[in-house]
Amino acid sequence: MPEEKKDIGITVKKQDDLPEWYEQVCLKAELAEFSPVKGCMVIRPNGYAIWEAVQAYFNANIIKPMGVKNAYFPLFIPESFFHKEAEHAEGFSPEVAWLDKEITGEGERLAVRPTSETIMYDSYSRWIRSHKDLPLRINQWCNVVRWETQATKLFLRSREFLWQEGHCVYATEEECEHETIEYLKRYATLCKELLALPVLIGRKTEKEKFAGAKTTYTIEAFMPDGKALQCGTSHNLGQGFAKAFGISFTGKDEKMHTPWQNSWGLSTRLIGAVIMTHSDDKGAVLPPAIAHAHVAIVPIIFEDSKEEVMEVCKTVKDRLKGLSVILDDRDDYTAGWKFNEWEMKGVPIRIEIGPKDVAKKQVVIVRRDSGKKSVASIDEAYKEVSVMLESMQHDLYRKAEEFLESSIVEAKSWKEFTDAIQKRKLVKGIFCGEIECEDTIKDKTGGASSRCIPLDDEPVEGNCLHCGNPAQHKIFYSKSY
Amino acid sequence: MPEEKKDIGITVKKQDDLPEWYEQVCLKAELAEFSPVKGCMVIRPNGYAIWEAVQAYFNANIIKPMGVKNAYFPLFIPESFFHKEAEHAEGFSPEVAWLDKEITGEGERLAVRPTSETIMYDSYSRWIRSHKDLPLRINQWCNVVRWETQATKLFLRSREFLWQEGHCVYATEEECEHETIEYLKRYATLCKELLALPVLIGRKTEKEKFAGAKTTYTIEAFMPDGKALQCGTSHNLGQGFAKAFGISFTGKDEKMHTPWQNSWGLSTRLIGAVIMTHSDDKGAVLPPAIAHAHVAIVPIIFEDSKEEVMEVCKTVKDRLKGLSVILDDRDDYTAGWKFNEWEMKGVPIRIEIGPKDVAKKQVVIVRRDSGKKSVASIDEAYKEVSVMLESMQHDLYRKAEEFLESSIVEAKSWKEFTDAIQKRKLVKGIFCGEIECEDTIKDKTGGASSRCIPLDDEPVEGNCLHCGNPAQHKIFYSKSY
Repeated sequence: MPEEKKDIGITVKKQDDLPEWYEQVCLKAELAEFSPVKGCMVIRPNGYAIWEAVQAYFNANIIKPMGVKNAYFPLFIPESFFHKEAEHAEGFSPEVAWLDKEITGEGERLAVRPTSETIMYDSYSRWIRSHKDLPLRINQWCNVVRWETQATKLFLRSREFLWQEGHCVYATEEECEHETIEYLKRYATLCKELLALPVLIGRKTEKEKFAGAKTTYTIEAFMPDGKALQCGTSHNLGQGFAKAFGISFTGKDEKMHTPWQNSWGLSTRLIGAVIMTHSDDKGAVLPPAIAHAHVAIVPIIFEDSKEEVMEVCKTVKDRLKGLSVILDDRDDYTAGWKFNEWEMKGVPIRIEIGPKDVAKKQVVIVRRDSGKKSVASIDEAYKEVSVMLESMQHDLYRKAEEFLESSIVEAKSWKEFTDAIQKRKLVKGIFCGEIECEDTIKDKTGGASSRCIPLDDEPVEGNCLHCGNPAQHKIFYSKSY
Repeated sequence: MPEEKKDIGITVKKQDDLPEWYEQVCLKAELAEFSPVKGCMVIRPNGYAIWEAVQAYFNANIIKPMGVKNAYFPLFIPESFFHKEAEHAEGFSPEVAWLDKEITGEGERLAVRPTSETIMYDSYSRWIRSHKDLPLRINQWCNVVRWETQATKLFLRSREFLWQEGHCVYATEEECEHETIEYLKRYATLCKELLALPVLIGRKTEKEKFAGAKTTYTIEAFMPDGKALQCGTSHNLGQGFAKAFGISFTGKDEKMHTPWQNSWGLSTRLIGAVIMTHSDDKGAVLPPAIAHAHVAIVPIIFEDSKEEVMEVCKTVKDRLKGLSVILDDRDDYTAGWKFNEWEMKGVPIRIEIGPKDVAKKQVVIVRRDSGKKSVASIDEAYKEVSVMLESMQHDLYRKAEEFLESSIVEAKSWKEFTDAIQKRKLVKGIFCGEIECEDTIKDKTGGASSRCIPLDDEPVEGNCLHCGNPAQHKIFYSKSY
């Protein structure tokens, strides 16, 4: 990013033009950039640090305690594999990128993986023989490719993205269903604890479920412009893939059985959700748990006191051990320029130290989200910063949660429903849940789609708000990304 | 792996048929398997755990202390990018996999990345404006694809593999050269400390250097069958790519300058080097620092003492906190079967606990590499195991180092040289280092290639052992993978 552009800052307000604001934040905070390859993106170090935080949290809090093992499967998938599970093939066929036959030769076509069910289950069919091999729980971190034709949005929609995909096999339906939901719940906890992101937890309708799944569960965040963003899904695949790929096992009863499977994934999309939710007109606001740096120390330099100030800055940096701290000692920039820079880049806390502070043995601490300034003695800087990081993480979540809760509208009629959709709300109502009915709702509302059926779904009474047939579920609807 | 096959164990000896032995170890220790996609491999959890250990070590000991940042660049590269640097394009062109135009449309062809210099330096040309932006140090962990036509060897040669590639930009030639070698040295330290793998450190000849590099540095391990295995490279790219991609910066003198670049990488090949070096006729032997588990506790079960034995097993497991411990409490397998299983899979230490041990408040501890048994009181098990893990790591290195050192032969004549090559030695001699001369040596020796010029290269006197022209360097030659 050339310096002259950095100086300008974000040129539109979040509330005036969210898509333009969002793109500017991603670019100017150096989180990502568009690639010369149409539809692809470059994840810059500040953005990739968020993904690394997600990976570390995930490996520690989901992979390890759940007994999942990481592995790696090929990038390329033979065409015939897709066709083994009919719904799955149909669901992905328009988006698949194929390799040129010039190099791959006369054999069958090879796809660049859009998801790895088929190539993994081919292996599973060899690995699983007996009930002793179950449950089998495997995850991979990888890139996937879906040849989107819609406009690229950094982190939110690109032809290549990074994700994890977990794929487990169980002897019983109960175990499978139980863990399918367990992974989803842990996704929601990750969103809360790490990303300060509140989400709805629920089940997808028939129309919105994954190609080949029996049931799809989802976590959905709600963005400031009144559009839902699917942040992770967990699919109970039933026995369909197992049958299609010939996965079977000898039970304790010494008879052959077909196992049950689930798959679950979350992607670099999450980074987009975090940025869009928390950031502001000055640039990125990042929850401390995922920020590329916790603190930026900016010395206020005057020629006659430079040495003392720099010395105190170094002392303070040393005392902040365990935190990621930038001491911005660059000579070529003014303090004001540096303030803007670290605000733009979303560093949660700025510490200012000038000659007056040195004289008073104090530092000035500024919180990125609220702009609130406080003063602490040098001795208490570590404690003050730690407390501030914790409350910032907490406050960001609470603020987002308030927005989510205030966005939910319960509609009692079709009119109330369409009014609320038009106001960009997250609208709850009772519906029949039929695919055709949902298609029509989407058409009539200019794109509102069902987001999920709440996990604590109870039998409903009354008629579908749209078609008038007997209602089956409470369903959340909204516009979406 | 079906049980019946597991029971058989490795069916050939390491010294009799190394390639077949190696493949069986990879397959039966469940480190990797061949994929139905020709030329690709599946990295199974036991193998992937090694890669995760490499990543963790690398991020902590190379990325962070050297000030490198992780990022992610697109999988696809436009054809025109390759042609910007002529030697680079030529070096990779036969191996590139292209996307099918049916999906990518009428624009230029897109390659699946064989390496990322070109796509990264395109970004760098926008990111770098001023000396203040330098040095720029970026690394990515990713998959790359090279459409090999030779037979696939698990971990050692496959069309897709995982690696890291670091790409740095510097204001001065000195800094660039200094760090190019620093990364290489840290690679060698990683090989020693983590993988118990001794390596030669050196510089590639003109013939063997990277396409587009000014100088290529390399670390080379030497396999038990007398073939070298290149384990990592670090390239001083000079200014060639910078000029080709229009990377320039304004110096402190306010004039425009062309920067200097390096790139450096190591891949999942390393896993192959580790397995081949340390493993034996019973299966995988893994250095403790990278093993998927440190200890397997196998209870010796008799019906009347089962409860007491299991209780002691659990106590011992609890006391081994901080280590990765498998308590193999499966009912369906005999203790003997379990011994073989964990030996095959390369778990460094087995602990046996039976009723006699319970009575004596002791455990039997067996080291995987030497088979040495020792007895320790339950109270001292943790200490004994820790010491044993440390000495095993150390001994594996020492053993491999002895082999490497004993394999080196200094040749004084062409006859001595060819004799030693025939005996599968790592042969040091003085050569002219000209490309044509090396080509001929390769032909005449049935494939021996120069591995490296030692890093402490000193001027040599005398004539090239092969062509008789004035010699330029001491060079190591051998057969290779």
